Amino acid sequence: MKKIFILGSTGSIGVNTLNVLRNFSDKFAVSALTVNSNSDLLLKQINEFNPKFVVVKEEEPANKIKEHLPSGCRLLTGNDGLITAAIEAEYDIFVGALVGFAGLAPTVEAIKRGKRIALANKETLVVAGEVVNKYCAESGAQIIPVDSEHSAIFQCMVGEGINEVEKLILTASGGPFLNKDKSSFENATVDEALNHPNWEMGNKISIDSATMMNKGLEVIEAHWLFGLPTDKIEVVVHPQSIIHSMVQFIDGSIKAQMGLPDMKLPIQYALTYPERFENDFERTNLPDIGTLEFFEPNLNKFECLKLAFDALEIGGNAPCVINAANEIAVERFLNREIKFSRIPALIGSALEKIENNKSSDIDTIFDCDRETRKFVKNLN
Amino acid sequence: MKKIFILGSTGSIGVNTLNVLRNFSDKFAVSALTVNSNSDLLLKQINEFNPKFVVVKEEEPANKIKEHLPSGCRLLTGNDGLITAAIEAEYDIFVGALVGFAGLAPTVEAIKRGKRIALANKETLVVAGEVVNKYCAESGAQIIPVDSEHSAIFQCMVGEGINEVEKLILTASGGPFLNKDKSSFENATVDEALNHPNWEMGNKISIDSATMMNKGLEVIEAHWLFGLPTDKIEVVVHPQSIIHSMVQFIDGSIKAQMGLPDMKLPIQYALTYPERFENDFERTNLPDIGTLEFFEPNLNKFECLKLAFDALEIGGNAPCVINAANEIAVERFLNREIKFSRIPALIGSALEKIENNKSSDIDTIFDCDRETRKFVKNLN
Repeated sequence: MKKIFILGSTGSIGVNTLNVLRNFSDKFAVSALTVNSNSDLLLKQINEFNPKFVVVKEEEPANKIKEHLPSGCRLLTGNDGLITAAIEAEYDIFVGALVGFAGLAPTVEAIKRGKRIALANKETLVVAGEVVNKYCAESGAQIIPVDSEHSAIFQCMVGEGINEVEKLILTASGGPFLNKDKSSFENATVDEALNHPNWEMGNKISIDSATMMNKGLEVIEAHWLFGLPTDKIEVVVHPQSIIHSMVQFIDGSIKAQMGLPDMKLPIQYALTYPERFENDFERTNLPDIGTLEFFEPNLNKFECLKLAFDALEIGGNAPCVINAANEIAVERFLNREIKFSRIPALIGSALEKIENNKSSDIDTIFDCDRETRKFVKNLN
Repeated sequence: MKKIFILGSTGSIGVNTLNVLRNFSDKFAVSALTVNSNSDLLLKQINEFNPKFVVVKEEEPANKIKEHLPSGCRLLTGNDGLITAAIEAEYDIFVGALVGFAGLAPTVEAIKRGKRIALANKETLVVAGEVVNKYCAESGAQIIPVDSEHSAIFQCMVGEGINEVEKLILTASGGPFLNKDKSSFENATVDEALNHPNWEMGNKISIDSATMMNKGLEVIEAHWLFGLPTDKIEVVVHPQSIIHSMVQFIDGSIKAQMGLPDMKLPIQYALTYPERFENDFERTNLPDIGTLEFFEPNLNKFECLKLAFDALEIGGNAPCVINAANEIAVERFLNREIKFSRIPALIGSALEKIENNKSSDIDTIFDCDRETRKFVKNLN
């Protein structure tokens, strides 16, 4: 029986993780669940899955469920609570399902304990890839990616040597604005930007898809996960999101992993690897789908993707800067403070103005993150 | 230095094998070459690759090159020569590149010696899969498929467990008649049938593509190579021939292998497996290709494909019968003796009339092959 810690259990990845675990209650048990504020859903999850630890980051919703907890279930709060749970709970697999920079610190604790990390929180590697890889090497922790693209690459790499890889080919749906003119970005609304054609996801990641920053962050994540340089990582637009990504080998052979756009599959794989467990998820029927298309990405139109490639080339804290700048820019767009077309401009300014400290020390990263956020909050 | 035996060195697979070997002269040496009758090309190959054994099946062309052979190169003739060479030559990898039933006997000798078999001769498994697998188990011989479809599946299976396979999905270009009406088969000419849209191949296999019997034989081959039952092997029409085949696993994940339609890649893989060697073959650029399409195959139109599935279900010598019947029917079509539309009718008659001996003994197979050929030669 494998014990599972879910960081962020009420978000899209967290809920899907529990959907997977529900099918394999003889193989997995839930040991900890954490949420930001959705205590109502958390309470239902607690009653179904019986975790020993729960963390509610915000005080008020934490107080709301306090007296409804079953005995033997410990409640913690705040960022400290997340870290304490990551350090003290008993678990075999840590599912890092929290979106954004906030997922970094507790994930690092799980890594230091040498656990398997089913990683959906891309920021962990984007901002702290170097130090995270160092911790993994020290502790023996193993990161299995949950992002469909990285899971695809990971699956294609099973039994293959990383030295035999010519390039990674990340597929991108192109998001809701693939066929819109760049000029329309000026007046793109929040609702339009949230309207992803294939995937149902949280707000932040949906906007990142519309700007293609999501793909940019994934390029950086792929760099740290698979240890390949920028020029061996390519993006191809594939609007149907059936091929989740590909690996091209030095002999010219390409392997691709496919499936319907459903996060349950890569989540399950990260939990069961190196095995595969039978399930009743809907199957992919290629004749029904009919056509798969492929285009070069337009880096002139999707400036955020270009900025991410630039940041990876610059190195040091540049990925941390673009990640923090992007989180604030997206937040400000979702709050209707800035136009959609301003998102890359704000990130570009931050990349230009924030000093690039080449140290990969984790405290330096936290400082850089704070400084960037402050800077971007105050930009017009 | 690995030593290579090429059975059928002047055909399409044989020539491409030498094209691959030419790039890696520090890793591979040629120890034996065999041909049916093309002694002119054989002589050039002998001068370049210095084999110790050569076999020319027909007497007359053998006599033609006798006095031009370098010292230390032994010349044999006839079917006996093929078998003697397979038994006596020194080699690590046996490339079974001869098309048709004639490839079976010498390939069996190589298998009995426990060699690696780079298998392009699909008839070896189609007609004698059960006994060939038995010989492999006894001798430790390992069959690495060269057919692009089976190589694709083999590559997708690297690091995966066969128990975790839900189904194999063989792709088929659909051949030159994919978009023609069945009624046009009545008057289809040899030239039309030979005109394959994607692959340059020999005559026999090109006709097999036009009838889709090629895919049917591949289904049977896949059955014996990977040990899966008929209902776990599917065919999908994919006119671009970029995805060479796929494996769907029990968790719903699909892995596909892709490349340009060029046999050099699967040939090289069969020689270098489990390693991959860097080469300068043209690379696949999906945005350039643009679109990949998928259709259900039309079993009513392509009756040969249906007959192959039927034969696999019937078992015993039924695959041997349809293979022999198909070889004769194709030969008669190429000789303008019968119409294209008669090919499945002849095979169907043989499947109905030839007694199905359930013994998988190799002599029974040879008898069944002979009997079927005689029967189909005399059909109107």
